[in-house]
Amino acid sequence: MQLQRIAGSRPFQTLITLSILFAGALVGVETSPDLVARYGALLHALDRLVLAIFVVELLIKLGAEGRRPWRFFQDPWNVFDFLIVATALLPISAQHLMVLRLVRLFRVLRLVRALPKLQILVTALIKSIPSMGYVALLLGLVFYIYGVAGTFLFGANDPVHFGNLPTALLSLFRVVTLEGWTELLYIQMRGCNQFGYGDFAALCTQPQPQPVAAVVFFVSFVLLGTMIILNLFIGVIMSGMEE
Amino acid sequence: MQLQRIAGSRPFQTLITLSILFAGALVGVETSPDLVARYGALLHALDRLVLAIFVVELLIKLGAEGRRPWRFFQDPWNVFDFLIVATALLPISAQHLMVLRLVRLFRVLRLVRALPKLQILVTALIKSIPSMGYVALLLGLVFYIYGVAGTFLFGANDPVHFGNLPTALLSLFRVVTLEGWTELLYIQMRGCNQFGYGDFAALCTQPQPQPVAAVVFFVSFVLLGTMIILNLFIGVIMSGMEE
Amino acid sequence: MQLQRIAGSRPFQTLITLSILFAGALVGVETSPDLVARYGALLHALDRLVLAIFVVELLIKLGAEGRRPWRFFQDPWNVFDFLIVATALLPISAQHLMVLRLVRLFRVLRLVRALPKLQILVTALIKSIPSMGYVALLLGLVFYIYGVAGTFLFGANDPVHFGNLPTALLSLFRVVTLEGWTELLYIQMRGCNQFGYGDFAALCTQPQPQPVAAVVFFVSFVLLGTMIILNLFIGVIMSGMEE
Amino acid sequence: MQLQRIAGSRPFQTLITLSILFAGALVGVETSPDLVARYGALLHALDRLVLAIFVVELLIKLGAEGRRPWRFFQDPWNVFDFLIVATALLPISAQHLMVLRLVRLFRVLRLVRALPKLQILVTALIKSIPSMGYVALLLGLVFYIYGVAGTFLFGANDPVHFGNLPTALLSLFRVVTLEGWTELLYIQMRGCNQFGYGDFAALCTQPQPQPVAAVVFFVSFVLLGTMIILNLFIGVIMSGMEE
Ligand code: NA
Ligand code: NA
Repeated sequence: MQLQRIAGSRPFQTLITLSILFAGALVGVETSPDLVARYGALLHALDRLVLAIFVVELLIKLGAEGRRPWRFFQDPWNVFDFLIVATALLPISAQHLMVLRLVRLFRVLRLVRALPKLQILVTALIKSIPSMGYVALLLGLVFYIYGVAGTFLFGANDPVHFGNLPTALLSLFRVVTLEGWTELLYIQMRGCNQFGYGDFAALCTQPQPQPVAAVVFFVSFVLLGTMIILNLFIGVIMSGMEE
Repeated sequence: MQLQRIAGSRPFQTLITLSILFAGALVGVETSPDLVARYGALLHALDRLVLAIFVVELLIKLGAEGRRPWRFFQDPWNVFDFLIVATALLPISAQHLMVLRLVRLFRVLRLVRALPKLQILVTALIKSIPSMGYVALLLGLVFYIYGVAGTFLFGANDPVHFGNLPTALLSLFRVVTLEGWTELLYIQMRGCNQFGYGDFAALCTQPQPQPVAAVVFFVSFVLLGTMIILNLFIGVIMSGMEE
Repeated sequence: MQLQRIAGSRPFQTLITLSILFAGALVGVETSPDLVARYGALLHALDRLVLAIFVVELLIKLGAEGRRPWRFFQDPWNVFDFLIVATALLPISAQHLMVLRLVRLFRVLRLVRALPKLQILVTALIKSIPSMGYVALLLGLVFYIYGVAGTFLFGANDPVHFGNLPTALLSLFRVVTLEGWTELLYIQMRGCNQFGYGDFAALCTQPQPQPVAAVVFFVSFVLLGTMIILNLFIGVIMSGMEE
Repeated sequence: MQLQRIAGSRPFQTLITLSILFAGALVGVETSPDLVARYGALLHALDRLVLAIFVVELLIKLGAEGRRPWRFFQDPWNVFDFLIVATALLPISAQHLMVLRLVRLFRVLRLVRALPKLQILVTALIKSIPSMGYVALLLGLVFYIYGVAGTFLFGANDPVHFGNLPTALLSLFRVVTLEGWTELLYIQMRGCNQFGYGDFAALCTQPQPQPVAAVVFFVSFVLLGTMIILNLFIGVIMSGMEE
């Protein structure tokens, strides 16, 4: 089959890789309002050109499968390629500029597919995630327990960071990255009327310092949370390296 | 024994796992005052239902041991299950709402028991702690020595962070997480009247800069503390992975 | 060949190592305007002396190659030595004081060459970088995608940190070091007129809170970015250790 | 020899371990001015008692060597024990209260000697340091080069953090812990009159933004510095674990 030979040839693959890189550069150039204002028409034309190349590539690869085009979709990476090209063809109105841009941005991800070694690396990382599933579940359990407890214990004194469950979970994620975690601790130790509510004084309606509970809560969470997350990361990296 | 067959059957175990997840969702819903105000009675009823399921489960498992119910308590995980259910049955007055809620929250931990692989993971992590006992002891020793020295050296100049031993130990834990540690250093290098006491000016009664001692103290503690804690974490994770 | 014997002799190598250390100390002394003002002439003379030693060393090593001096340049470390000495001989006008000083500072790097074990370590670290090339490429891809998306999504609300692509990439590097990343998140969650633009109020022209997009963007980037960068570091360190 | 039997007996060793723990608790109690004011005389008496026990212990161990007491000093841990007891016997005037307290605090370190497994752990960690000597040297070299360059490039614009070489080295240590490193970056990117000198406005005499140099300097230092320090830590921990 001639299409098969084309699809597997080196010049064809190089052309696709260069097109992906070029599409990535295009969307990067579009971050500059100045350049868009000056070269908008040119950028749009180049974008159409890249899209045309991708459509032709897809047709060649589909054609290369001969009478069984559905086999093309048995490889999940092909489905991924297809979706990225297909969404670009959807009639998204120009009003949804942001959506259009993000869709175009995702084309850069095709690079993972185009470079076999990068594909192997990403596949290995993704495959190693399920093996760490129970560590992730444990992390989720710890977050949930501390999140609910934090909302009950600290929600009244610190509504900005523990006012409801989603906010508390976000604050716990902040604590586990160790970013400014002592600020949250000191708000509980001293009460919101004494510390940290300079910008939100109106929200500090029920100041209530609880130094002991706060120290136990935050110190134990920092130790547990960082250890489990480090365990998770090292696990993923190690099983990713083995492959 | 029929009870033994029931206790070991898959539908029974699935029911229990779902009940635990449902109990966890219930306590999460209770973090929202709105939902509690609107569906309080329903939530309370569902909570009683879950508790009833747990009590029945416990009775079945106790019954499955036949004439030797005490054997049930030989597995520490069974004791753990029993305590969580038993505390929920204690006549805690509605005034201690917080205690009631936290007790109910701990039911989520039964998930560790219900999912065998999660139980293996947690057991491995807990078992690896004693093997790291001497590293933890070394960490405690370093914290204690720096804590006492910090109180002596820096307590007068920075009473907020080094005023007494427990406060100093908490500040050292903050330093070891590298969160805002230079703030504590600069207070000592420049004196509390020059840096960091904007919010507590009244507490800065004996400003006394000691730049050399401060740099030696904090830099050496950051190096020692982070190395030992990293050693501890890696040790726990490694021996956890081996199992 | 006598020059070969000299170049390989221990006293010669010790003299060069000491000269490098002395050159390093000299440039350190020059950081003090006081010392430069008082001992400027002496420092300059000592600097000329060190340079003379380095030139003689180079001539000896070139001469040691006999009739094939170009063989000297086949070792990249020799090229490195040559360039460092050659740039010091360039007629840089005294106006470009900063350039002169930095050129002189780079002489300290000759220490890597002079101590064989340090050279082995640095060579091993440098050699391990290509083996991590695809992890670095993946990191670059993730940075680029989040950088472009961040400029599109957050540029209007937070021009200081996401106003254009280079600025956004720098902010993402900041996020991946976990330094003050929640500040960038809160600016997006609450809008620049509510948080974080105290110092740049005039730049907050289009406040536009997007809490959901911001949480998804930053939390996913923190997880992905830190995991890939940790993977990269551990990979470099591990392959560096094996050598 | 009877003294040898005593020195090696379990009750004797337990007594010493308990005395060390008690000495540690004593010095911890002395951090509280209240307790010192109330029980000062008692604390002093107990302190003398502990010291007496340590002196007797030392004499027994010296005596156990029989006619060759100098053999006692061939074990570096014995020298360590001897020095800690000897300094406590020095006639330090009560004016140097701080010195007295710190000397007494160091007694807690005797615990490392008293618990054989802790001694093995500490010995392993100390022994693994020389094997990492060249990584530490490389780290020192990188710090020195960036420190001198930082003083030259940024000293005028940011005298508080880069005014002289020791200050610059301390700031670089702060950067390598990733604590508030972007603050130092932004001072250079925007100039000290635009950012970060709110508290030290009088020190900002030569504002001079250098965005490109600053980004190259800090980003490269963060990458290099954290990688080498992580390499150092992992190296020490790994060789410590092998022993
Ligand atoms: Na940090
Ligand atoms: Na931080």
